[in-house]
Amino acid sequence: MAVIVQKYGGSSVANAERIKHVAGRIGQCHDRGNRVVAVVSAMGDTTDHLIELAHQVAPSPAPREMDLLLSTGEIVSCTLVAMALQDLGYKAVSLSGGQAGIRTDTAHTRARITGLEPDRIQRELEKGHIVIVAGFQGVTEEMDITTLGRGASDLTAVALAAGLQAERCEIYTDVEGIYTADPRLVPKARKLKEIGFEEMLELANYGAKMQPRSIELAAVYNVPVLVSSSFVEAPGTLIHGGVGMEVRNKVRGIAADRDVAKITVLGVPDRPGIVAALFDPLAQEGISVDTIVQNASVEHITDVTFTVSRRDLRRALEVIGPVVKSIGSRGCASDDRLAKVSIVGTGMLNAPGFAATMFRTLAEAGINIEMITTSEIRITCLVAEDRVPAAVQALHAAFRLDEDQ
Amino acid sequence: MAVIVQKYGGSSVANAERIKHVAGRIGQCHDRGNRVVAVVSAMGDTTDHLIELAHQVAPSPAPREMDLLLSTGEIVSCTLVAMALQDLGYKAVSLSGGQAGIRTDTAHTRARITGLEPDRIQRELEKGHIVIVAGFQGVTEEMDITTLGRGASDLTAVALAAGLQAERCEIYTDVEGIYTADPRLVPKARKLKEIGFEEMLELANYGAKMQPRSIELAAVYNVPVLVSSSFVEAPGTLIHGGVGMEVRNKVRGIAADRDVAKITVLGVPDRPGIVAALFDPLAQEGISVDTIVQNASVEHITDVTFTVSRRDLRRALEVIGPVVKSIGSRGCASDDRLAKVSIVGTGMLNAPGFAATMFRTLAEAGINIEMITTSEIRITCLVAEDRVPAAVQALHAAFRLDEDQ
Repeated sequence: MAVIVQKYGGSSVANAERIKHVAGRIGQCHDRGNRVVAVVSAMGDTTDHLIELAHQVAPSPAPREMDLLLSTGEIVSCTLVAMALQDLGYKAVSLSGGQAGIRTDTAHTRARITGLEPDRIQRELEKGHIVIVAGFQGVTEEMDITTLGRGASDLTAVALAAGLQAERCEIYTDVEGIYTADPRLVPKARKLKEIGFEEMLELANYGAKMQPRSIELAAVYNVPVLVSSSFVEAPGTLIHGGVGMEVRNKVRGIAADRDVAKITVLGVPDRPGIVAALFDPLAQEGISVDTIVQNASVEHITDVTFTVSRRDLRRALEVIGPVVKSIGSRGCASDDRLAKVSIVGTGMLNAPGFAATMFRTLAEAGINIEMITTSEIRITCLVAEDRVPAAVQALHAAFRLDEDQ
Repeated sequence: MAVIVQKYGGSSVANAERIKHVAGRIGQCHDRGNRVVAVVSAMGDTTDHLIELAHQVAPSPAPREMDLLLSTGEIVSCTLVAMALQDLGYKAVSLSGGQAGIRTDTAHTRARITGLEPDRIQRELEKGHIVIVAGFQGVTEEMDITTLGRGASDLTAVALAAGLQAERCEIYTDVEGIYTADPRLVPKARKLKEIGFEEMLELANYGAKMQPRSIELAAVYNVPVLVSSSFVEAPGTLIHGGVGMEVRNKVRGIAADRDVAKITVLGVPDRPGIVAALFDPLAQEGISVDTIVQNASVEHITDVTFTVSRRDLRRALEVIGPVVKSIGSRGCASDDRLAKVSIVGTGMLNAPGFAATMFRTLAEAGINIEMITTSEIRITCLVAEDRVPAAVQALHAAFRLDEDQ
């Protein structure tokens, strides 16, 4: 019997009615002859409420206690889904992340999965049980509860699918699939039938609503991932490794990411080791630095510009403050009103026409490009946040994504 | 350094303000040079809300999932108390029941503690940490979460105090201690300075606000228990084994318990094995039967009357239904509008005047006695529920508990 891993997001289990609806869908999958493991997120705004409660008690709560606190949200929803299934006459069992065998390192609030011990799940499946797993969480060697970072229920689902050699991982959410662009920005955006892991990774990293780490993991273990809606019956988007040749060498989608803050360190002496002195402390604090640009040096003095996510901006400035002084730089400037707009498609870098079209399109729309970065399958421009809708719409039309393909 | 185990009930941690207040008190105990372990209940009405949520999803949720669901309430409050302590500058760590080493059997919703593995707590105490433990819960051998029954955070605290050889277990609640009677029923009720384990056990079993199983455990391990208020600074009641001679041979308090339902099995053939046939299935269902009375048999036919807690009434009737038929009885009658009123004091049974005074006092107040049971240190009368206040007040006066002693 095939194992199917499903994942239901917070809006899909936001209240008792929706939980019963989700239980019905999980039951149907079981009825079709599958062994089903379903991963669930916390109900609706539960996680935000718990964070608020923590901040009422302490302005900066310790990550370890925060993880134990937040892990309760997913436990509540997974027990309720199991109860709803039992009420429908199915045999079901709810498991915390730890019980499900998700082992992690000790990096609280952003732990990494170090291993999976799926014996408990396998035993339950062999007994004919449907297994409901609390997403987003794991357990360290010392049995401390960790969380895997926001949106990481996707990661739990993909990790379980990989560990259980599932036929497919199905991510149910409040959108119907992966689109050529955010439909709220581009009314003409179209849903993709399928997309490759790499392209999806770039789309996810640059704005599409799926957790990038889970795509990476799916790619490594070659787990096909189906993204579709838990509310309407409609075919979703299949993310997999075997996307046909006919969709290569094309822009597949336009991504936008507003979670961007830019820091410029002014007047940095251009000597070996200086850049390391700047970025080592950020890495130690767990702050991810994205794009880095170093201007051409004038008289051995240069400016270094880099981006971080907005929530890390304040902490990044605190961390590099002393370094900036010690290396004799003139100081820092920052801007958190920027966004990234990207075009994504396989084989783009070998076809220079894509970059030229992108830059021309933005110029014609009167949009200034602050920074540019590229990967094998993506070209990204940093633009002012308020120009994002205009930029995405212009690019969606320029690359003919408006048209049926 | 002495180990002190404290326990704070749900009303003591009902909101952020109270949690901070509780953290302050825990910190003070640490400042006085103690190693402190604090057990906390779920915030305010959390447990009731979770039960309601479960019933919205399924009318009769499975006990295993219910336990995993309810265990989150205490985890939320223990993490918040730890955060509040950290914010006050203390080193603190929050632990779930399982992490704290509370091992139980698999009797979900009413699990029994089978062992304590306190190594994690001891390691944390040795590091100078204050340890906050989620009450009411434990973990089975298979790492399934269990709960220990309502009010069982007291039990968690006493078990930890016993296992850690604590100097004292302090139970902080919304009352100032143990009273000669419920002050809401008897305005003249007085707070006791001290009371013996056995007397306290009878008071708790028969209405005083403390979990009986925790008193039993405290008695077995000889853990002194201080009951006092978490809201006001006032001396509480010390429950211990070494109560002096001068308080013996006296009624110490009047208890009332409204959680009583009576079942009468009518026309039971008076043959060996019949009573076992009646009560074995109840025991198998985990329904505690309290007082049992068998009428004198007339022509080998008798009536058997027993009491259960009100929440078990419906289930008890379901369980004995088939048995009643199979033994040829005439059927069942039940009444859930009864209550127990008890007088408690050491050495009472050897001084017959107590029983006589009790029966006369109730008779003079016009209160009918439905059943009578006694122990070494307690005499209990079953009366109509609506007569409880009158009965308790009359007995409180008759045994001179109104007077300063």
